[in-house]
Amino acid sequence: MVTRIGLVGCGTVGTGLIEMLDRKRDFLRERHNFDFSLVFVSDAIKGTVFSKTGLDTAEILKEIAARGGMFESRYAGNGPDKLEGLLREARPDIVCEAAPTDYKTGEPGMTILSSALKAGASAVTSSKGAIGLNMAGLKKLAIENGVHLRFESSVLSGTPLINLVRGPLAGCSLSKAEGIVNGTTNYMLTRMEAGLGYDEALEEAQRLGYAEADPTGDVEGFDAAVKVCIMSAEFFGVELRVDEVRRTGITGVTAADVANAAKSGRRIKLIAGASREGGSAAAYVEPRAVDLANPLASVSGATNAVSIVTDNLGEITISGPGAGKKETAQGILSDMIDIVSMRYQSG
Amino acid sequence: MVTRIGLVGCGTVGTGLIEMLDRKRDFLRERHNFDFSLVFVSDAIKGTVFSKTGLDTAEILKEIAARGGMFESRYAGNGPDKLEGLLREARPDIVCEAAPTDYKTGEPGMTILSSALKAGASAVTSSKGAIGLNMAGLKKLAIENGVHLRFESSVLSGTPLINLVRGPLAGCSLSKAEGIVNGTTNYMLTRMEAGLGYDEALEEAQRLGYAEADPTGDVEGFDAAVKVCIMSAEFFGVELRVDEVRRTGITGVTAADVANAAKSGRRIKLIAGASREGGSAAAYVEPRAVDLANPLASVSGATNAVSIVTDNLGEITISGPGAGKKETAQGILSDMIDIVSMRYQSG
Repeated sequence: MVTRIGLVGCGTVGTGLIEMLDRKRDFLRERHNFDFSLVFVSDAIKGTVFSKTGLDTAEILKEIAARGGMFESRYAGNGPDKLEGLLREARPDIVCEAAPTDYKTGEPGMTILSSALKAGASAVTSSKGAIGLNMAGLKKLAIENGVHLRFESSVLSGTPLINLVRGPLAGCSLSKAEGIVNGTTNYMLTRMEAGLGYDEALEEAQRLGYAEADPTGDVEGFDAAVKVCIMSAEFFGVELRVDEVRRTGITGVTAADVANAAKSGRRIKLIAGASREGGSAAAYVEPRAVDLANPLASVSGATNAVSIVTDNLGEITISGPGAGKKETAQGILSDMIDIVSMRYQSG
Repeated sequence: MVTRIGLVGCGTVGTGLIEMLDRKRDFLRERHNFDFSLVFVSDAIKGTVFSKTGLDTAEILKEIAARGGMFESRYAGNGPDKLEGLLREARPDIVCEAAPTDYKTGEPGMTILSSALKAGASAVTSSKGAIGLNMAGLKKLAIENGVHLRFESSVLSGTPLINLVRGPLAGCSLSKAEGIVNGTTNYMLTRMEAGLGYDEALEEAQRLGYAEADPTGDVEGFDAAVKVCIMSAEFFGVELRVDEVRRTGITGVTAADVANAAKSGRRIKLIAGASREGGSAAAYVEPRAVDLANPLASVSGATNAVSIVTDNLGEITISGPGAGKKETAQGILSDMIDIVSMRYQSG
């Protein structure tokens, strides 16, 4: 079986996914029995390319590298340019959504994912907005249409957390998930340990591309809070609104706080978590001085980590990259392989 | 579909598995669509019980608790007492093997697993011996018979490592796996940091049941070396003999070594690992002074952790329990759920 893939959103992550599919085509077929055909790529800025029989991934990448867009590709203008038309004409098995995300509206992810699921395609997303806002509604839509919805990369990029709990931890009940889920603030706090003040650390993070020009989403803990909502919904079945997460960012953390923590053998980390409390969940994002013996203490720079508490295993901690081009693409790829193995395996 | 389970070996782990199946019956059906029937339990010391229609798990547990064996159970003597007969009469879908393991011969696991696979049952094992000795041969046997072989609990007990790489990390190539895979020695080294000498730490570990009367397998690094062989075979496809693993145990580590490492901000850990080198692998077990910034440094007591290096994600580290009754049973359960979801999922 060949899996027909459509991609919506071709910024850093989307391009990373095309590169990975291009580079790993043979490996994926031989190792994971994953044979694919990329039938469309659609991006608000770079344009749309379409081929019923599958795009030449190398050519698309060359086109993007050379011209920053796909308008002059031989695949441009060959098919519809709106999503509904693309879904109808290309009949993808899986739509990958990697568009920029708006935490407040969940758009454009919400519309893209809903359209894909309604058209009978499974949907994989790397963006937090729609999943953080309405996971239950989207899951219901997937079930109604007999397809799958996956979102590994929405938390910790491709570092397995969502699929770790779904797969290898099957059989466990979770009571808590807590960790460092925002790389920007963790990088800043790590640099403040090295002696930088808050403003210097922020400037450096912006210079390196870790922080945006308006850093509010990261430093005020909104990004982490959305991820907490995703963990609560996925692990406990408790959907929270972002404003239900008790939230303190790192803007009030000073170089003196960091130095004082170090004197008592601790490190200040922005800790985001949720714990199940009966049928509801307590959720929080807050700077906390953690002891060096805590597995989260040694998580430095842009690395992320989450500890989960389970009935069968006690505490399990996983750490790895929290962002990045190929790191996020890997999460999308892993979701696709899992969907396909569930669809086609029967012996 | 009801999954027919046979269990061979009913010591701590086997009993833990029956307890988990008993306690989680409803949860497993509702959450994971895993409906089971335990059709036999066979143990060299506790005897054999058999029921074509499924044993009453609560009654078996009561019997073991009350009498230390199953000879007087109403299920005893109702069927064959040899494995071949049990497989023929009970027709299990999955055989779980949790017998004590002999690293040198792989027995009795080797015979049990081979018999199960040849009889057309999938096999799940928590023991290291057979898998460490001949993973390729057993995998071949599984493929020939159209069934599955799984062994999550053979390394880090139920803390996901094998299934983490198989499932959520699908798409990645691994170049290295390294970590703390022996809880006994890690407990001893942690206690030596607190000021105990080697002999005191060993005595304490023996008193707490972490170390055996003859501690050679742990302190000389044999247990860790077998786990390295499993990681090398599973992750790189390179089968090594235990004597091909460069191996130094912790018997030469003194209180002074531990104290000196601490002075330079480091901790001595027994590090076990393998790295891919072309078509072969370099494998080792050795005490090493690791920097506190290393994620392995904060792994204390009986906890285990492994860092793996992948092409798509760089380094991923997972830590959790390395042994224990329900912890090991969880690994077996997770393997069974995965096998069943592969067998029956088709939509």
